[in-house]
Amino acid sequence: MTEVAAARRDVLLATAEQLFAARGYQATSVRDIAEAMDIKAGSLYAHIETKEDLLWEILTAAADRFFAAADPIVESDLLPMEKLRQLIAAHVQVITDGASLAAVYMNEWRHLTDLRRTEFTARRDAYEALVRGIVRDGIRSGELADLDEKFATLLILSSMNWIYQWYRTDGPMTPDEIARKLTEMLFKGLRRAGA
Amino acid sequence: MTEVAAARRDVLLATAEQLFAARGYQATSVRDIAEAMDIKAGSLYAHIETKEDLLWEILTAAADRFFAAADPIVESDLLPMEKLRQLIAAHVQVITDGASLAAVYMNEWRHLTDLRRTEFTARRDAYEALVRGIVRDGIRSGELADLDEKFATLLILSSMNWIYQWYRTDGPMTPDEIARKLTEMLFKGLRRAGA
Repeated sequence: MTEVAAARRDVLLATAEQLFAARGYQATSVRDIAEAMDIKAGSLYAHIETKEDLLWEILTAAADRFFAAADPIVESDLLPMEKLRQLIAAHVQVITDGASLAAVYMNEWRHLTDLRRTEFTARRDAYEALVRGIVRDGIRSGELADLDEKFATLLILSSMNWIYQWYRTDGPMTPDEIARKLTEMLFKGLRRAGA
Repeated sequence: MTEVAAARRDVLLATAEQLFAARGYQATSVRDIAEAMDIKAGSLYAHIETKEDLLWEILTAAADRFFAAADPIVESDLLPMEKLRQLIAAHVQVITDGASLAAVYMNEWRHLTDLRRTEFTARRDAYEALVRGIVRDGIRSGELADLDEKFATLLILSSMNWIYQWYRTDGPMTPDEIARKLTEMLFKGLRRAGA
């Protein structure tokens, strides 16, 4: 791919991501994407085979980012609780970096078909397993309480993943502050110590 | 409305809810709903003006359920932490009672237009304010830690609202068990006491 073609492809993917996030995948046509890019729909088909190809590329890129953020932490020699703290910070960073990417990642994968859907959910499961592995290690090491491992993992993931719903880049909290607050509440709980 | 007409309307709303949850509102046509009910699309228009009317009725009924579950708890004389515990149980019950209702409520309201959208988000905000009020009272009474009130409210809401994503009626946990575990983890935190 030439540099120009690659740059055009980036614009195409960014445009599709915005529209899929705002309107939903099903309600967005290739024509809508072309119009938003101010080109003819016919020209888009030089770049893609189908609309689902775009969704697939966006979702694959999103999954790549979550893994790229988490992998070095998982493979490090840190203690489980510190791993969890850093993973929450990294995950929150990915979500706040691209709220429209997160919206597509959380909601639109349902529209993938067949093998792609299977591959996507397998990667999501693998990511969940990775978080769950840290939770398990933390319970074993005694840093975490004697928790229901799966349920604790879902609580951590859901509280992180919900952030794209309310995060605004011009809001009062930086991604680091969000991660710090979330970690503190998740670790220490909402109850006053001794209450 | 006659009893027969009311019963038909219930079937219509239940069918629309299922389809909106499974495929998304935008991807579901009135024809799809008619086909799923095994009637002609034309007959449906005796019952509704537009597809958005159906979405509006479903979302209004969902909001009604959340408020009906929460209001008596909020208005009771219970201490804030007990209110919060009961509210979590009641909210989880609404979500697990109707996972497709919850899916439509969380995701599809974006497709409402104009005044309806404004009214829906106002009710969602009112519900959030109601939970936030209990959190505030809990901080004041010293039962809860000295928390960021808004952030703690979002953590509670997001952890409850995510449940529809993974809850299965044939899963290993009852709604009561889910609520109990969630409350315990949220209140006490994931960290081992003293660790």
